[in-house]
Amino acid sequence: MQKKKRRIVILAEGYFGDLDGKTASGLIMYKPQEVVAVIDSTQVGKSAQDVLGFGGDIPLVGNLADSLKYGPNALLIGIAPRGGKLPPEWRDVVREALSNGLDVINGLHDLLNDDPEFSKLAKSKGARIHDLREASRYDTVAIGDPSLIEAKVILTVGSDCKTGKKVTAVELAREAKKHGWNPHFVATGQSGIAIFGEGVPIDSIIGDFMSGAIEEHLIEKSKTYDLLCVEGQGTIVHPGYSGVTLALIHGSLPDAMILCHYPGRERVKSYQVKIPALQEMIKLHEDLTRPIKLCRVIGISLNTQELSEEEARAEIEKVEEGTGLPAIDPVRFGCDKLIEALERLKR
Amino acid sequence: MQKKKRRIVILAEGYFGDLDGKTASGLIMYKPQEVVAVIDSTQVGKSAQDVLGFGGDIPLVGNLADSLKYGPNALLIGIAPRGGKLPPEWRDVVREALSNGLDVINGLHDLLNDDPEFSKLAKSKGARIHDLREASRYDTVAIGDPSLIEAKVILTVGSDCKTGKKVTAVELAREAKKHGWNPHFVATGQSGIAIFGEGVPIDSIIGDFMSGAIEEHLIEKSKTYDLLCVEGQGTIVHPGYSGVTLALIHGSLPDAMILCHYPGRERVKSYQVKIPALQEMIKLHEDLTRPIKLCRVIGISLNTQELSEEEARAEIEKVEEGTGLPAIDPVRFGCDKLIEALERLKR
Repeated sequence: MQKKKRRIVILAEGYFGDLDGKTASGLIMYKPQEVVAVIDSTQVGKSAQDVLGFGGDIPLVGNLADSLKYGPNALLIGIAPRGGKLPPEWRDVVREALSNGLDVINGLHDLLNDDPEFSKLAKSKGARIHDLREASRYDTVAIGDPSLIEAKVILTVGSDCKTGKKVTAVELAREAKKHGWNPHFVATGQSGIAIFGEGVPIDSIIGDFMSGAIEEHLIEKSKTYDLLCVEGQGTIVHPGYSGVTLALIHGSLPDAMILCHYPGRERVKSYQVKIPALQEMIKLHEDLTRPIKLCRVIGISLNTQELSEEEARAEIEKVEEGTGLPAIDPVRFGCDKLIEALERLKR
Repeated sequence: MQKKKRRIVILAEGYFGDLDGKTASGLIMYKPQEVVAVIDSTQVGKSAQDVLGFGGDIPLVGNLADSLKYGPNALLIGIAPRGGKLPPEWRDVVREALSNGLDVINGLHDLLNDDPEFSKLAKSKGARIHDLREASRYDTVAIGDPSLIEAKVILTVGSDCKTGKKVTAVELAREAKKHGWNPHFVATGQSGIAIFGEGVPIDSIIGDFMSGAIEEHLIEKSKTYDLLCVEGQGTIVHPGYSGVTLALIHGSLPDAMILCHYPGRERVKSYQVKIPALQEMIKLHEDLTRPIKLCRVIGISLNTQELSEEEARAEIEKVEEGTGLPAIDPVRFGCDKLIEALERLKR
């Protein structure tokens, strides 16, 4: 997927700029040069900058045909519906993309290479389908020996989905680089894999092999890097995804965790579950890792995008007082506050 | 699989009577009338009774050919190697079984229906391959609403693998039946599914859909039964399988848990992880369920098979004092001590 220069049109119909369109906004944040257009018929005529506050003049168009004049060579399915199924109305868009010789980058659980119509069409047009969640190759049980990972591992965990776990890990890796580390961001979800072109699609691996998959990846990456910033998934109190969350915690055997939280969110997204207090969440994560490896939560990452700057600073202060830990919003204020905590891991 | 009367020969080569041969011993414990022979060339000439202390005169034979005189109509692969791969030396046994028109009941992660040689051979001989861990049909995310399950749910959890979670759930269902409940045992592993012919192979389902799979199954079963005794998997502190364990805990939304433990075992099987004290394990399980549903550990189940009766009773007393909860060995002493705790759930 990384061989030819990507010129991507993102399908984000109805969701661009929304938390549910985070693959689209993430790609534009980190790889704007790879995006030629975004499909969202509800916002035609605007630019990425208009909607996101970054991304420059990447245009929003109403459909795939209108994007072709920008010369895309790939369509990215840039939103992730619950359950990861391809909505019927998107079949036409995928068909049209393949018919025009565009690759399709697909992060859904539904694997498009398994779809006879699409795989045949792709073949006939010389296009490729990249199913980011194809996970049948993972078939090992975790070894569970932290000494095999020859780098420090930082895992972002969260009080819910969509709290900033990916962004925090990416930003931490960027900041650590400035301070002499040789860091690497490890994507574990379809958004991160779509953006950076590699990772472990942990939520698509069968139960027994989830931990083994991330462990194996980290052992390999630790031969090249000295700091692995791993993107967490879900939350340990999520009714549907907690198994993935814990497999990632135990499979990555982190040296430290950063707890990500969306201030003001009281219940787990789409559920009635009340999010426990941050202090309780910290304790629960440390209690769960202790039997396998001593691992502390060393900082809190807050997604303050809906707050004013003043409110955000007040929230950060409140959280620091309540938890006794440094708190950051990595997008808004950077994450240099965490660098000192990282340095302590070296000792 | 349940349509025709099963006459099973169990492949338990080298492991019969061992904890790693628990599918074999479980089937003989609960369905001895379905077993015609056991293959274990290291113990030829003995009977099941000789090795297990139950199972009567079911003969141990050296190979598949020697079992044919007992008239089997199915071969059960009765041991579960780590990672669930089919060892190369067993391919011959599977081939020989299918060639003789026997069905093959396979609980490994390796799906034998996907093996071109085996599927072709089965078809030509009119034999069927039952892949108990075939899990591609599961594709829903958990709803997370306890009110949808119209029965009381008891989940066995454990301090490790192979501590008696399946047996405890089976025995509890049997005992509850005598006390006016309409109970049902819910298998979640390949052994339980092999024995009872149905269940949810949770460790073979992809991460995002594990909780949803067990939830959906319990919603359905709760229309018929008023008590669902669910077999737990792994342990919450297992480096490889904890994700499966937690998905099952949150997906089954239990009304109560029973903690299963193997006295004297200090470390998680095959790992260096020290098993936390039972009191800590109880607290960890209750802390993990509380945000979603209040759920207490109501009893401890001990597997005392390696202890004398006197030692077993002393261990039970010690555990009751330490935890303040009733402790049982369901195989040795029954589980009537837990019935009163169950009754309290009705109120």
